[in-house]
Amino acid sequence: MTYIPSSHFKIADAKRGDIGNTSSQYAKAFFDRLNFDALTVAPYMGEDSVKPFLDYKAKWTILLGLTSNPGAENFELQKITKQFENLDEGMHTRKMEEKYLYETVLETASKWGTPDNLMFVIGATQADEFVNIGKICPDHFYLVPGVGAQGGSLKEISEKAMIRDCGLLVNASRAIIYASAEKDFADVAAKVAKAYADEMKEYLITASVLT
Amino acid sequence: MTYIPSSHFKIADAKRGDIGNTSSQYAKAFFDRLNFDALTVAPYMGEDSVKPFLDYKAKWTILLGLTSNPGAENFELQKITKQFENLDEGMHTRKMEEKYLYETVLETASKWGTPDNLMFVIGATQADEFVNIGKICPDHFYLVPGVGAQGGSLKEISEKAMIRDCGLLVNASRAIIYASAEKDFADVAAKVAKAYADEMKEYLITASVLT
Repeated sequence: MTYIPSSHFKIADAKRGDIGNTSSQYAKAFFDRLNFDALTVAPYMGEDSVKPFLDYKAKWTILLGLTSNPGAENFELQKITKQFENLDEGMHTRKMEEKYLYETVLETASKWGTPDNLMFVIGATQADEFVNIGKICPDHFYLVPGVGAQGGSLKEISEKAMIRDCGLLVNASRAIIYASAEKDFADVAAKVAKAYADEMKEYLITASVLT
Repeated sequence: MTYIPSSHFKIADAKRGDIGNTSSQYAKAFFDRLNFDALTVAPYMGEDSVKPFLDYKAKWTILLGLTSNPGAENFELQKITKQFENLDEGMHTRKMEEKYLYETVLETASKWGTPDNLMFVIGATQADEFVNIGKICPDHFYLVPGVGAQGGSLKEISEKAMIRDCGLLVNASRAIIYASAEKDFADVAAKVAKAYADEMKEYLITASVLT
């Protein structure tokens, strides 16, 4: 951490999530001791596993929503059924609603935090789902991994997924850190990173976020 | 790790789970470098996030199924809908099946591993679900946390959940490690641990697993 300037926003992509008592200790370790600004958290274990991270002032919890990997299909993209009592027009019927698990995660978890302490991970490889996601949580920011090595397109997600103030924190890891295995690795990595930043700037101008 | 005899079965309750490339590195760290025998893994991100752990020979992946904490309600106990084409008796209809998310996790993941490299976490506070769980995966072992500080009853889970060869690895953490905050902490912890072991032994005799 001593190599990263203190002005930089530091995300620990550690995907933690445990019973409340343990999550509290993880929060302390990442936010207090290591001084990260944000931490990725896995939602599977529910509210009391996520809340201890949200309790930290001026820190961000970035909850997994729809991830960039093929395994997203197994559970995140399974349909959850919710039944509602329908009392419209004096009729008492049951109404059924179907949602993807990841949508249920976004809807449920957005009530635990606010757009000021909670973001969601949505993979760049899932660009087609972004239209829908923007409707569920229009005010939350999204951390978008999967650009580069995983095949997500910066252009595509910029076109489909920008919301208010852009709303996207796009992340490329392996495409940058593994850009070169030679002695010039620092220069090559810097060049690739700058190329992504320049490309993103163009899309921000197109979307009138930057002028 | 130097304090733990090498003959002991060592579980890292680290709840990892990430894209394949990162999970591979976690597997290497916990299984090769730290020499743990088993690691708890979170299922949310699906197959490619779990497989790298299963690829290790003579090591165990312990996947979260139905956890012991209140937040299990939020997602693990939500109903997943599966639709099937029903072609019975020449009729072409659609059949719908509803399952809890955690059941879907058990069913799906049990195909990724075998009873010899994959266990599931089922909380001791979820004893009522054990009858059902035994039907889905009768040959897998279960890691059962939640006895002690979280209120799970060793007696209840022993009565409801024992399968072939017992099938349960029951875990009590805080009830033992926080048994005393005084100088006698080691003795008191040893006594509490022995009391649990003695109690379990009785239930194993009752269930004819031990004679």
